[in-house]
Amino acid sequence: MKVAKFGGSSVASAEMLKKVANIIKADETRKFIVVSAPGKRFEDDHKVTDLFIQLLKQFKDGVDYQDTLNKVVNRFRMITEELLLPNDIPNDLKNKIEKLFSMKKSDEQLVDELKSFGEDTLARILSDYLSELGIQSTYRNPKEAGIIVSDDYGNAVILDEAYEQIHQLRNERGVIVIPGFFGYTKNGQLRTFPRGGSDITGSIIAAGVEADLYENFTDVSSVYCVNPKLVPQPKEITMLTYKEMRELSYSGFSVFHDEALIPAFKKKIPVVVKNTNQPDLPGTMIKAEKEDFSKPVVGIASDEGFSSIYVRKYLMNRELGFGLRLLKILVDENISFEHAPSGIDDMSVIVRSHQLTKEKEQKVLKRIQSELNVDTISIQHNLAMIMLVGEGMSQRINVAAKATKAIAEATTNIEMINQGSSEVSMMFGIESEKLQQTVQSLYREFFE
Amino acid sequence: MKVAKFGGSSVASAEMLKKVANIIKADETRKFIVVSAPGKRFEDDHKVTDLFIQLLKQFKDGVDYQDTLNKVVNRFRMITEELLLPNDIPNDLKNKIEKLFSMKKSDEQLVDELKSFGEDTLARILSDYLSELGIQSTYRNPKEAGIIVSDDYGNAVILDEAYEQIHQLRNERGVIVIPGFFGYTKNGQLRTFPRGGSDITGSIIAAGVEADLYENFTDVSSVYCVNPKLVPQPKEITMLTYKEMRELSYSGFSVFHDEALIPAFKKKIPVVVKNTNQPDLPGTMIKAEKEDFSKPVVGIASDEGFSSIYVRKYLMNRELGFGLRLLKILVDENISFEHAPSGIDDMSVIVRSHQLTKEKEQKVLKRIQSELNVDTISIQHNLAMIMLVGEGMSQRINVAAKATKAIAEATTNIEMINQGSSEVSMMFGIESEKLQQTVQSLYREFFE
Repeated sequence: MKVAKFGGSSVASAEMLKKVANIIKADETRKFIVVSAPGKRFEDDHKVTDLFIQLLKQFKDGVDYQDTLNKVVNRFRMITEELLLPNDIPNDLKNKIEKLFSMKKSDEQLVDELKSFGEDTLARILSDYLSELGIQSTYRNPKEAGIIVSDDYGNAVILDEAYEQIHQLRNERGVIVIPGFFGYTKNGQLRTFPRGGSDITGSIIAAGVEADLYENFTDVSSVYCVNPKLVPQPKEITMLTYKEMRELSYSGFSVFHDEALIPAFKKKIPVVVKNTNQPDLPGTMIKAEKEDFSKPVVGIASDEGFSSIYVRKYLMNRELGFGLRLLKILVDENISFEHAPSGIDDMSVIVRSHQLTKEKEQKVLKRIQSELNVDTISIQHNLAMIMLVGEGMSQRINVAAKATKAIAEATTNIEMINQGSSEVSMMFGIESEKLQQTVQSLYREFFE
Repeated sequence: MKVAKFGGSSVASAEMLKKVANIIKADETRKFIVVSAPGKRFEDDHKVTDLFIQLLKQFKDGVDYQDTLNKVVNRFRMITEELLLPNDIPNDLKNKIEKLFSMKKSDEQLVDELKSFGEDTLARILSDYLSELGIQSTYRNPKEAGIIVSDDYGNAVILDEAYEQIHQLRNERGVIVIPGFFGYTKNGQLRTFPRGGSDITGSIIAAGVEADLYENFTDVSSVYCVNPKLVPQPKEITMLTYKEMRELSYSGFSVFHDEALIPAFKKKIPVVVKNTNQPDLPGTMIKAEKEDFSKPVVGIASDEGFSSIYVRKYLMNRELGFGLRLLKILVDENISFEHAPSGIDDMSVIVRSHQLTKEKEQKVLKRIQSELNVDTISIQHNLAMIMLVGEGMSQRINVAAKATKAIAEATTNIEMINQGSSEVSMMFGIESEKLQQTVQSLYREFFE
């Protein structure tokens, strides 16, 4: 039994929904279908969710919103017409929006309810379309499905008690279509999930029904082993583990939002990333346990925009709690640190540069200088981090040697090495301007 | 103008004092001589300071201490007799000890005063001997020399105001012999320095008189680039910087106690380690600034007895202050950490194992588990750390690649790499049992 989630670009048009229907038809075990709201059909297109946000702003500003309302409704009407379905659902959407605007709801409640209409309308249309095609299909509102969430507007969290009810969905007949992105509180109030909301719903359903597989359909065929902006046409990853995916997500590299998959991970349900346009390609499989240990490195993540605060103090290592006091100053100033490599008498703290305004930087350096009475303090900007990711990597004797050789071959100086916290990754800090050539050299070493 | 300090083994016998006198005679700029108490003459010999400690114990226990007293006095008498000096000074020592025991002094005061007699008596003898040889020489008690210290028994610290008076010593004629290891409070009370006390006195005098060189005479010809217990007959270091020496001292590797050289360092006075038995060898020079950059690595320090506490928590890097709270638990339990490498979702903390009793280990692990709600926690013992030391090393592109290759050639897995806090060192954590073969492999790579 599989849960298949289709993202915004996969449901952006009638043409795409035909592909979705074919995918569902092709595999009888695809029982639970979770959908996003229609995304962009072309570069400059609007996502339906963005239109809802525009609509809401116009309504609240008291300006005429009819044009925008029609735009939204017409997006859905185009779909139903092209799919030769009646226009009841789009018409109904228009009424629901007008009704919502006429009710005295709090701003937050209004936002959450309005935003949910995109996924909800699409789910209704898809279910009807599947029925038209002769596939037994039922639309299930998240309330009926049992998606019971916390009371946080726009940031809802699934409650543990929800899973029991969701589990009951297994007993229903045919295909069940569920809109992603939202759930209901115990009091029956609608609440949306944070970013990546449809991924979250899919993951929750997969966990609840204890699916054999959670298929995540998007517009990419698989996850690349390295950022294609740095290495043209890199190899695709066929299989990786949850931990590896999480480390790769360091660079905004992943196709998922980090938290989205937690429910599925907890139940050890495998996840596969597939392309709606090429559903026969294997995609990238994400599993709990490593199976293929033949290659130590599965991917190279990288990111820019780091700064390193360096302090030196003679006999630092005799001072119990020195490192602690240094880090506390940063946390006091609401700066989270990424890494803190330390020598005998010195310590560096790597932070994301966006946290440091000129003013804050001065303040932090001054505090460290005066409160810790250090001998030397300096700050280096424009650092990039490269992370080699591969579970079990640290047990492979040659990885560090190969990596440092590849970095040296790119004539890049290593500003920082951070390894040893886990078996999953090894991190190198370098100057940003050397990032591309260094990543390319590492790619040649580990993937060619 | 030079300050020469002679350690315990360099002044252990009349024969050694003759060598010391020759060294002083050979260079007119050796104006300030600082001496330790006589050390061991042979393997099973007693250091004079140890005899004093035994003597004090017997006195306090109320048992007969005459034998021990005679032993101490005879050590000095043997020296004066062999140097053909009168026995006034040893006889005087006996009277001073008896007088001290008859006075009602606090235990702490008694310890400090008694222990100072070793250095003091030797300084008096050496000065007389130099005079006999026709070298103009004066014994200067630390009080007259201006060594004004804090009021901490056995752990005195020089006061800043002392340096002005010490500076005046420049104007005195001839050789000045000063006993190491102790100074006087502003109220004229005698206080001893902590371990390495004669090195401290030498360093203070060198700083005070602004010497051109601080010569530290011991029984080794120079500092080895690696522990000779791990690599037989390793190369000697001819030159290193203060920072490099400090990093090398990580492993108890250095000939100095860390703090001893601070006064000289602050004034940027070069220090040379020389062998009293082979004074013509160049020894090892320690300077403020690096001069020879031809070799990136000057030494390999290593040490055993480390443990690594590993924690993993999904989405750890989203929790502001997670690392801080982890380290705080350790500091709460009075455990100082050496290093804390961190990944995305995991973090290791390296500590010296001797800080962890079985009970404390359990307590710390339990606190981390419950207070930080981590997914995984484990602890690894029997780790060794290897540190490559060389100022400017991190600017050398090949060092990491060469080091990791050498470690891989020793079939050693790297448990941790810590680099990037400074330009001075790069550290590798490995399993203790692989220490010797790994250090040997690194030695071959960087020194052969």
